[in-house]
Order: sequence, then C-alpha cells, then structure tokens
Amino acid sequence: MTLSHKLTPVPFTNVRLTDRFWAPRIEINRAVTLPAEYTMLESTGRLAALDLKWKKGRPNPPHIFWDSDIAKWIEAASYSLATDPDAALDKLLDRVIAKLAKAQQPDGYLNSHYIVFEREGLDRRWTNLRDNHELYCAGHLIEAAVAHYQATGKQSLLDVMCRYADYIDRVFGRGRGKLRGYCGHEEIELALVKLYRVTGNPRYVKLAQYFVDERGRQPHYFDIEARRRGENPRAFWAGTYEYNQSHLPVREQTVVTGHAVRAMYLYSAMADLATETGDESLLAACERIWHSVVDERMYITGGIGPSARNEGFTVAYDLPDETAYAETCAAIGMVFWNHRLLQFNGDGKYADVMERALYNGTISGVSLDGTKFFYENPLASRGAHHRQGWFDCACCPPNIARLIASVSGYFYSTSEDGVWIHLYAESEANIMLHGRSIALRQATTYPWDGAVQVALRLDQPTEFTLRLRIPGWCERYTVRVNGKRVQGTPERGYVCLTRVWQNGDTVDLTLDMPVRLMAAHPQVRQMVGRVAIQRGPVVYCLEGVDHAISPLDRILIPLNTRWEIEHHAELLGGVVVLRATAKALQAQATEALYAPAAPPRYAPVQITAVPYHAWDNRAPGEMRVWFRAV
Amino acid sequence: MTLSHKLTPVPFTNVRLTDRFWAPRIEINRAVTLPAEYTMLESTGRLAALDLKWKKGRPNPPHIFWDSDIAKWIEAASYSLATDPDAALDKLLDRVIAKLAKAQQPDGYLNSHYIVFEREGLDRRWTNLRDNHELYCAGHLIEAAVAHYQATGKQSLLDVMCRYADYIDRVFGRGRGKLRGYCGHEEIELALVKLYRVTGNPRYVKLAQYFVDERGRQPHYFDIEARRRGENPRAFWAGTYEYNQSHLPVREQTVVTGHAVRAMYLYSAMADLATETGDESLLAACERIWHSVVDERMYITGGIGPSARNEGFTVAYDLPDETAYAETCAAIGMVFWNHRLLQFNGDGKYADVMERALYNGTISGVSLDGTKFFYENPLASRGAHHRQGWFDCACCPPNIARLIASVSGYFYSTSEDGVWIHLYAESEANIMLHGRSIALRQATTYPWDGAVQVALRLDQPTEFTLRLRIPGWCERYTVRVNGKRVQGTPERGYVCLTRVWQNGDTVDLTLDMPVRLMAAHPQVRQMVGRVAIQRGPVVYCLEGVDHAISPLDRILIPLNTRWEIEHHAELLGGVVVLRATAKALQAQATEALYAPAAPPRYAPVQITAVPYHAWDNRAPGEMRVWFRAV
Repeated sequence: MTLSHKLTPVPFTNVRLTDRFWAPRIEINRAVTLPAEYTMLESTGRLAALDLKWKKGRPNPPHIFWDSDIAKWIEAASYSLATDPDAALDKLLDRVIAKLAKAQQPDGYLNSHYIVFEREGLDRRWTNLRDNHELYCAGHLIEAAVAHYQATGKQSLLDVMCRYADYIDRVFGRGRGKLRGYCGHEEIELALVKLYRVTGNPRYVKLAQYFVDERGRQPHYFDIEARRRGENPRAFWAGTYEYNQSHLPVREQTVVTGHAVRAMYLYSAMADLATETGDESLLAACERIWHSVVDERMYITGGIGPSARNEGFTVAYDLPDETAYAETCAAIGMVFWNHRLLQFNGDGKYADVMERALYNGTISGVSLDGTKFFYENPLASRGAHHRQGWFDCACCPPNIARLIASVSGYFYSTSEDGVWIHLYAESEANIMLHGRSIALRQATTYPWDGAVQVALRLDQPTEFTLRLRIPGWCERYTVRVNGKRVQGTPERGYVCLTRVWQNGDTVDLTLDMPVRLMAAHPQVRQMVGRVAIQRGPVVYCLEGVDHAISPLDRILIPLNTRWEIEHHAELLGGVVVLRATAKALQAQATEALYAPAAPPRYAPVQITAVPYHAWDNRAPGEMRVWFRAV
Repeated sequence: MTLSHKLTPVPFTNVRLTDRFWAPRIEINRAVTLPAEYTMLESTGRLAALDLKWKKGRPNPPHIFWDSDIAKWIEAASYSLATDPDAALDKLLDRVIAKLAKAQQPDGYLNSHYIVFEREGLDRRWTNLRDNHELYCAGHLIEAAVAHYQATGKQSLLDVMCRYADYIDRVFGRGRGKLRGYCGHEEIELALVKLYRVTGNPRYVKLAQYFVDERGRQPHYFDIEARRRGENPRAFWAGTYEYNQSHLPVREQTVVTGHAVRAMYLYSAMADLATETGDESLLAACERIWHSVVDERMYITGGIGPSARNEGFTVAYDLPDETAYAETCAAIGMVFWNHRLLQFNGDGKYADVMERALYNGTISGVSLDGTKFFYENPLASRGAHHRQGWFDCACCPPNIARLIASVSGYFYSTSEDGVWIHLYAESEANIMLHGRSIALRQATTYPWDGAVQVALRLDQPTEFTLRLRIPGWCERYTVRVNGKRVQGTPERGYVCLTRVWQNGDTVDLTLDMPVRLMAAHPQVRQMVGRVAIQRGPVVYCLEGVDHAISPLDRILIPLNTRWEIEHHAELLGGVVVLRATAKALQAQATEALYAPAAPPRYAPVQITAVPYHAWDNRAPGEMRVWFRAV
C-alpha cells in the first residue's frame, strides 16, 4: 500500500448537506433524537449516577458502561452544536459536563460505576480490564471532550479528560509499578489519538501506541489479572481472547475475530496510529484483516458480526439473514475504520464499504422519526423485530446520533495535489487547499439518481486534481467538464480531472444506476441461489405491509425482471421504490409439516421493494432482503 | 380421543431383536458404550461425589445434576442386564448402588451436590427448585431403581428410592408446613408413576399428580421461592417460565414452549397420569400440544428444539438446519411421549413420530462404534460439528444408552382384542394375550426394505386381531395371510386382521419403499424450495466425504431424479445408500463476496446419500439434509 496520496478529511463543519436524504436525518437527529436520548439518560439514572450518590438497595445501580452512553451523547450533541448553534443545548452540555467535572476524583479518575458501586469502591478499579469497560468509558469521554472543545472552543470537558488521561498514563505502561494492561473493549486507543491531535501532547499518542502494541502479548495480561482476582483464566465467560482481539499481538492477526464493535474500534486506532507514526506494519495488519471482513464476512448492508453469542464474528462466509446480529454500532465502526483507511491511499474500495454501510446497515439503526433504534439489524424478519426507544445496553442510539450529526465529514478529503469527492449528495462545501478556499457545490438527488453536478467557486484560477469517486456498484459512467465529455483518468475508483480550474467550472458526473440483482459468493451457504436487490448504493427489501403473500420467502425473483423505478416523495421520507412482477410459489395442497414434494406451481405476483434502511417504519410485519432467483 | 383401544406395551424383555440394524447397536451399547460411560462417571468425579468427601478447593465439585448421569447409566445398564446377563456388570451395579445407599441421609434425602457442596449444606436443599434439578435427579434415580429391580429382582436401590420418595412426599404438597413447589426440570413426575406401578403404593402416583397439577399455578412458586432467596423473580435468567413449562397450569397450555427435554418429560408424565387416573383433560392438553409440536415444530429427523439459547422451542415453523439444536435427549423424549400417547388409542400418527425419531434424530446421537455422542443434532454442518466422548453436561450419552438398551420395548402392544405391531425388524417376540403365549417372529431387513413376514407360533388356535402398522411414509402396501392377498381393515394407520389364528400362520406385509423427496410446509422459511431425501423411515443426507463439490449447498436435486438403491453391507455398519445424478451450481467467475447475479450454470454431479443417523462416522466434513429442488 502506497502512502503517496495521503488524504486529509474535510471537516464535517465545512460541508453543509442540503439534500433530501441526509439533511432531514440530521435535522431529526438534532430536534428529536438528541432530546429523546437526553431524556433517557435522565430517566434511567445514567445522569444521576454522576452525582455519585447511589447507595446499595436503591434502584438504577450505575452500570459499568453507563458513562460511555453519556459520553457518546455529549459527542453527538457537540457535533450538532457545531453545525446548528443552539443556546439551550449549549447550556445543557455545560450542566452535564459540570457533573462530570465534579465527579472526577482528585487523582483524575472518573467512572461512576467504580466510584459508587463496587463494594470495595475505588480500590477495585483496574482489577478487571478484561470485562469492565473502564478504559472504554474513558475513551468515549475523551472523544466527547474533543468534540465539545472543537464545537464550542470551551475546554471544560477537555481539561477534565486531559487530567484523566494523564492519570491513566501514570497507571498504565511498561514502566516499573505500572499496570501492563489494556482494555477488553477497545476505544481508548483511538480516543487518545484524537486527544493528541487536539492537544499536541505526544504522551497521548504514545499511550495509545502502548495499548495497541501490548494487546495480545504473552504472558497474557488478562490471565495475570484473572489470577489476581482469584479466578481461573480458562473460565473466561467468552471462552476465547479472540472475543476481544487479544488472542495474538495485533500485527500477527490476519482474520477478524470476536466482538465486532471492539474489532472495528481497534482497527480504527491502528489506522490512526499508522497515520501518526508511519508504522506500515499496522497498516499491513489492517489490510489483511480488512480482506477477511470485506471478502468473507460482511453483509450486503455493510453490517458485520452474524452471531448474537459473541455480538460478533464466526467463520468465513457465515452470513445468516434472519438471525444476523449485525449490530448498528458495528456497521458504524465499519464507517469509522474504512474512512480512516481511505485516507492513506484514496483507494475507492474503502469508500465503497463506507458508502455501503452508510446507506444501509447504519441508518437502518434509527427510525425515520428519530425516536426508535435497532440494536440488531437482521436481513429477514418474521414480523417480530422492531426498533425500540432504548436498551439496557444503550450503545447504539447515541452512536448513530453521533454518526448522523457528523456524516458530512465523510464526503471530502484533500491531498497534496487536490480534492477528493468520496460521496454524493446535494451539498455545499468549503474546502481549503494550500491555504486557498474552494467552494464546491453538488447538485444531485443521489442516492436516488446517479446524475451529479459539481460546481466550483474559486477566487482565482487554480490548478489541482479533482477526483470524483466512481462507486464500485457503477459499471458505466460519463464525465463532462463544462458540458464537454472528458475521459479523465480512472485510478483505484476515482476519476481524476487535473486542470487549471476556473471560477464557475462545472463537472457533470452521470453514474448509470440500474436495478441490480446481486448474488453472494457461493460459499455463503445461506444465500446460494438467492439474490438481493440493489440500486446504486441502496440495498432494497420487501416488507409484509406491501404484499399479500406470506411468508415472503415464497417469492422468487426472475433474473430478467423488468423493474419500474418510482420516486415517491411522500413515502418513507421520500424514496425510490422498485416495482416488478415476480413469481410466487403456490402453497401445496397439504398442510402437513412434511409431505412428498409436488412440482412447484407459481403465480405472478406484483412486488414492491423499498430501501432496507427504511424498513419497519410502517405497519409491523415481515421483511426479507434475499430471494430465490429463477 | 377415545380410550376404547387402550394398549399395553409388550416389555422389552419379551422382544429379542435379531436384525442387523438394532441388534448390533444393542450389542455395541452393552459392550462398548456402557463401559465407556462408566469410565467417564469415574474419571470425572461423578462416582466419587457419592462418597460425600468433596471439600472446597478440590477438583471436580459435584455438579447439581451429576446424580442424574449416574442414574441414567444405572437404568441403561439394568436394561442391558435384563436381556444380556453379565455377572461383572451385576456386581458393578451393586457397588454403585451401595454408594448411593451409603450417601442417603437419615431422613431419606439423597443429592451429592447439596450434601457436600452448598455452603450451608443441607439447609439449602429445596431452596431453588427452579434451577437446581434436585427433584429431577431424584426422578432419574427412581427410574434407575425401577429398572434395576425389574432386571435383577434386587430391591437394594428400590428401597433407597422408596425412602427418598417417601421423604419427598413428606416435604412437598398442599398440606400445612409442606413446600408447595415442583421441579424446574420435569422428570420426577413420570418417575413416580413408574415407582407406583412397581410398588403399588398409591401415594407415589398422588405425588406425581400433585407435581403436575401444581405446575404453573398462581401465586407462582418460583416467584415465592426467588423472593425467599432475596432475588427478584423477574430477574430469572431464562426470562420466562415458558422455559420450564410453568407459565400456565398444564391443562391450559396449548403450545409447546421452552426447554425441549423438560417439555417431553412433562408431557410423558401427563400421559402416564391420564393412564392411571383416566383424566381426559390431561390427555386433551397432550393432544393440543402434540399438534403444536408435530404440525409446526419438529425436524424431519424427529428432532425438536431449534434454539441453543433455551435448548428448546421458539416459534412455529422455525426450523433452521445448520443451527438446529435438536438435542439428542429431546428426540429421545419424543419417543417416550409418543410411545405413551400411542397406548391410548393406537393411533398410528404417534407411532409415525416415534419411528421418525428412532431411525433418525435419536440414534444420530451416538457414533456407530458406541464411543462418541452428539448433544446437538443439526441438519447441516460445514464440517466442524463432531461427536464427543463426553460433555460437562452429560445428559445425552446415558440417555441414548438407555433408549437403545430397551428399544425392543417400542415394537409391540397388546389390547383387549389383540396384538399391535408398531415397528418392524427381524425379531422374536413372546406376547401374552389373555394368559396365552403368542410367539411372533418377524423376518425382514427393515428399514432397508419394506417386505416383512410375520410368523405366529401358537399353542392352540386363537381368535384375536393382529394389527400391523402401515407407516405414514408408505403410500402403497399389500398384505397376504398364508400367501393369500387380503384387504384387512385399515384403521388409523394399522391394518387389522381379525381371525382365528393357527399355529404357523404367516402374514406377509409389503410396504412400498421408494425414495421420496420431501418438502416442508411453506411456512418453514428456511426450507422453502428445498427437499430432503427420505426412504422408508430413514432420512438421508449428503456428506462431504462422498462429494468433491463444496459447499454441498451448490447441489440441486431435480424432483424427477432417478435413484439407484444400493445396499452396502460394509458401509456404516450396513446401510442402503442412494445414488443419483443431480445438478451442481457452477461457481461464478468472480470471487467477490457480492456481485451482480449471472444466470446460473449447472453441471451434472453424481451424488451419494447416506442415512442421516450415520453421518460423521467417516472422514470429517460437510453434511446437509435439505437441498434446493429443481
């Protein structure tokens, strides 16, 4: 992997989405989701926990990872504040941050569970890094602090978290008297890199590097720690250190294992460290592991982690649909990781995965009205799977909120020689290149149509390379500059247009966007002979509410189906639905559970496919992504 | 349901199997499995636990249900002793029983876990009926005692268990000062009916009735008990009392729920009580629940309970193949329950289920060499599922041993008017009808061929109805008496031949046994468009070892396939294999995880199907039962 094209993301605050896909989601996130989540933080006792007044026997004992829920909400609210000033939200954040500041212990420690809940209190801190998420919570609070500082310029939370990070730096490491441990749930590593980037303090990146490098070494810290607790390390409830990616030193890992969210946060940190340190061995490990995910273990929605047992990975090509775990947070992690990898060499394959997750398996995690959330994102349902207002383990709701609030940050990058457009949506961007401002406007109805016009506003003619991503799903495209067809140079998923750009120049990109029936690799046993419907980056599904036939599994889709592509502005927030005539297997006469197979009889059936991400927003019922092909 | 044809099973000791299917299994069970299991009982500390010398900190703490493993082994060994005298085994049983007798407490209590392990020792007994299996263990010990007494005439264990049962009778019930509880894992109920039948003591059947009647009543005993332990009843780890079938009084239950083995043992007890008490309401509940199992929740192998989460049932028509739990013990429970229901009215539908489980989902649980066991019996495997020599939770190995040792007891019944043949195998039976002995010999190679000759030896001409079961899988059959074709009266799955039978009379039954491609009900989503291969009662599978193509999911079976039926005496202990030319989906050129679907290309492929029950007895590899049909 060459580092020659090292990219820098254009911050989300420099990109304003004005489209009908993301902009309404960002607004609902701001106006509905963030307040609703705050209410849940309050009513479940999460915020009260920071007052450190909880006593045994009272309701709502502070859970080990409650602080992280508050942290992700602060992060999401800060992103929102950065793009949509809101004095009330600003004050609310100050209040929550004041609680955190007050809860911080004199030495810098901050964890509402350990401070009030553990019988032996603070003496028990750091005694179960494997299971108890202390450094994970610290990591999310650091991300929150960075976001809040960047949004508001206030150092209130940043100071708290620098003190905490300094304390963690005194506790952990290879020096004498230090704990040579690391967290069972990765997160602190990528957070410390963020903290380094905003403070410039190199100790934070060194600490992150220590956590990543130490992971999985022998003698194994989680063994040592378990024995200190008087436990048999072999009795680890998850059965294997693959669960938390500590079965091997990270550079020796070749295949993704274990808990999917943990994996994504670790690999994101590895990519961050590679950026900061130039350590190619970390990048090489990421690349190997990336192939094990994307070539063998990813749902067509960009979701990952098929198994509920470990909230994570099993074996290659194990991608069941109805029982898919595919946690919302894990798909969000795919966005984080692929966005980071993309910055190294601008290889569109990472942007393809990022786009796949963004338009499907992440945003399926929140209802269109912003009030309900999926934790699991299966690709088929009998009708009993529905979004909920909250979860005891509430990682997903604030995680999707922080993604949506900052989604415009995934659209552009700059590199030494120019500007990269990774994603398409009606938007306005202000991009700094070598100290000069480039205003870039996209006019498009993407993802519903493949026509994109990019208009440039420049103070003066400027030579640079404008790179437009040709998505992996697109087989035919045209590019016009100021109305004239140009060839451009296709390079790893981007068409490169190098010229002296003038103010008012336009680029018209037309991406052919037919309906595609997608097949899975034949080793995906569950999907042999089946197809999924995709158009552009959007994966479609059929819902019970649109069909009289049940189960939906009785529908077969002919490979030569002619699709009608209809835009419905009123449906599901405005979507393109796909209509066609398919075949329905007629029920056999017998109603026995097992009977000699009769030759199947089919009848034509009208089907209506809607975007997978928008399912379960109407009458509850069945849903299915993969259909038998004929 | 009419009780007019009430049947009595012919005891297993009166039926000697001389065939090549069951007889070798019974012999391997005796010569290999029972000694191997004894070795495991010894080496795992289970037998030592009965010495009550375990102390904290030592290895092998006695587990809550260890006693039941010993009990089931005693039961299996006793059955074996009853048909194959063995002085060494007899002595070994005496030694184990002496340990049990010595471990029994002065008040009759007997449980190696509670006596030595619980911190507060015996004071803690009966404090967690919901989870801790005390009465379950007692039940298995009672079954063992009855079996040992019947096999040997010795009362050594029977006396111990009568004392324990008397003690249990003093502790539990509705009287003042008694515990109004019942066991979270049903088993004691059916055991007490057996104890009643052998002792004639009506208190035992009354106690069984109490346990069954009390189950699921409000206020709920498991709630009361949890509060007594200082726990919140809502925090029940299994989430719902459906798990142990105590969510409703048993007569109000309409659908099978929860842990599959528990369910089968409860329903078996309900059938037993209906027999003893004539309580039609229990039978009506059984019949309703039976339909929910057999019409909606049973694997084609007779296995039940798709989910590992609760070792049991989920929703109607949820029958995934690769992740099927289908515990061996649960399929055995299906045999127990259906055999009991069959005795009420001789309806062949129960015998059909019993036969399905016997020839498929039960005996798959043990390797052909008798040394290794399946706990889970999935209907597809990628190659990583293999039998093991033992399990921490070792319920299945001795359970399959006791089933095989007594399998001849499922073949015949008598009723007021005659003799019922439920199952077919080369065998000799000695049947008492109204005080007269009927010797009945079956000559057949069933299940590999559908021709059965029944020969009668009678002291004198005797009028009775001989009923021969026409299996549900059989669509065409002929009956000949002394070579002459007769019609017989078909009645609920049995052809009835009423006449004055003479010594030397023969009946030739010919059951057409073609290969059948079976389809599942269209609501079984996982199997829509798929077929399973069945011939006679035997369900077939394809194994990787016989095929070069992988995954096996790429194989499609044409509905009009012509099968070659080949008997291989040397293969898998002697089986019929089915060979045919099917279609193999050719891999697409691309190796991407997702790619636009190309029209499928097929090539002919030779396939070899082997009996499902015999899979994983050769080179390890893939296995699959259900194939896409074309």
